[in-house]
Amino acid sequence: MISKLYTASIIVIGDEILSGKTQDVNIQYIACNLAAMGIKLQEARIIADSKIEIIQTVQKLSKKNDFVFTTGGIGPTHDDITSEAMAEAFKRQLEYNNTALQLIIDGYQKKGKVLSEGSKKMAMMPQGVELIMNSASIAPGYRIENIFVMAGIPWVMQAMFHEVKQYILSSYPNLGDPFYSDGIEIFLGEGMIAACLKDLQDKYTEVDIGSYPFKKDDKWGTNINFRSKNIKLINAAMIELKARLKEL
Amino acid sequence: MISKLYTASIIVIGDEILSGKTQDVNIQYIACNLAAMGIKLQEARIIADSKIEIIQTVQKLSKKNDFVFTTGGIGPTHDDITSEAMAEAFKRQLEYNNTALQLIIDGYQKKGKVLSEGSKKMAMMPQGVELIMNSASIAPGYRIENIFVMAGIPWVMQAMFHEVKQYILSSYPNLGDPFYSDGIEIFLGEGMIAACLKDLQDKYTEVDIGSYPFKKDDKWGTNINFRSKNIKLINAAMIELKARLKEL
Repeated sequence: MISKLYTASIIVIGDEILSGKTQDVNIQYIACNLAAMGIKLQEARIIADSKIEIIQTVQKLSKKNDFVFTTGGIGPTHDDITSEAMAEAFKRQLEYNNTALQLIIDGYQKKGKVLSEGSKKMAMMPQGVELIMNSASIAPGYRIENIFVMAGIPWVMQAMFHEVKQYILSSYPNLGDPFYSDGIEIFLGEGMIAACLKDLQDKYTEVDIGSYPFKKDDKWGTNINFRSKNIKLINAAMIELKARLKEL
Repeated sequence: MISKLYTASIIVIGDEILSGKTQDVNIQYIACNLAAMGIKLQEARIIADSKIEIIQTVQKLSKKNDFVFTTGGIGPTHDDITSEAMAEAFKRQLEYNNTALQLIIDGYQKKGKVLSEGSKKMAMMPQGVELIMNSASIAPGYRIENIFVMAGIPWVMQAMFHEVKQYILSSYPNLGDPFYSDGIEIFLGEGMIAACLKDLQDKYTEVDIGSYPFKKDDKWGTNINFRSKNIKLINAAMIELKARLKEL
């Protein structure tokens, strides 16, 4: 099967991240998983709990990428406006999703808890979505067009992403190889090896060669990272770099 | 002095974040500092080491916000293309900044290190920028228009941001109060308090009330966060919430 390079973006909907209160950890989690699935993450945006911002961002990114993943804003309170925004963005009715509503009613009954109007709100979704079940919370996420709408709490998001991953892997068998990566750590400053790395990058166009300085015990060093879907090319580039470094 | 609400955005330029290899920590650091300075962070974007992406993103966000902060891509290697992109974005010549070049020459001499072409590249900047000196690295960052161009390594970025902060605080005396925030943690699910929180938000329009579920010892609870430039309103809203929770 001929593989295709699929692209993705992430939209983190969260005032709590922009205020500095909370450190986002969802982007890295999704990024690592996408790399393993062979999908290229093009960009990630952290935006405010603002309906107009959400609408404009999903409209733009859903056109630019094969997949979009959103986290946050699907809970029961006034600041959870993601579903309202999704409905408007794709001109769909916002309505109770019967399956989701039944899941919530059953879940609350099982726990012996009173079902409030607020909790029922979590079943208000754009018409015609596909639910993302999960083992962590009663309320599901959903897929609308090429957008996967997930919770913001990391462990709930991760449970939802587990389902999303199965769905994508089985629906897109032509994802091809994962993104492999490997690296070398050397105690030479970036400036010393810049020319050599440029040559190598020009030769190995299918490998992304990244260079990241660090300081350990007051000595500067460089982490050189190699990333590609083609593991043989990574190995070849690394062998060549090691040989060249000996000549420096 | 009448204060004005200034807005900001962050652009993290970094393949290493999008690949999942590295956890970004710069956004939260800048976000916390902006809150303390009374500046509203509107959005943060993580984009690839791609010239066209950088150009389009800085052009867009520099128009949308009073301040833009970028991190990453100003080192000496082939994947450091931020300065090239900035020059193109603002139609300025890319040239050696003499002050920056002298700093780099002096810094290398002082350390007894050989100055390579790569290291000199760090002084290649758009024409007419204002340098951001810093105590952490030899090479400076810079300001171009309303964009502060900083390094990606967290501790170098932090040293640069320290200078940026002094500059903004002294140049914009009408920033007004910081963003204050306070919170309450309760062991009630979000659904139970959603109606009450909505009432409160409708009444206190100058306070952003956020609600974040958590699970501790298998019990669901909610963190309710209050954020505003007006600390009196935060206190009033919190007192009112506590009184209402007693009635639940």
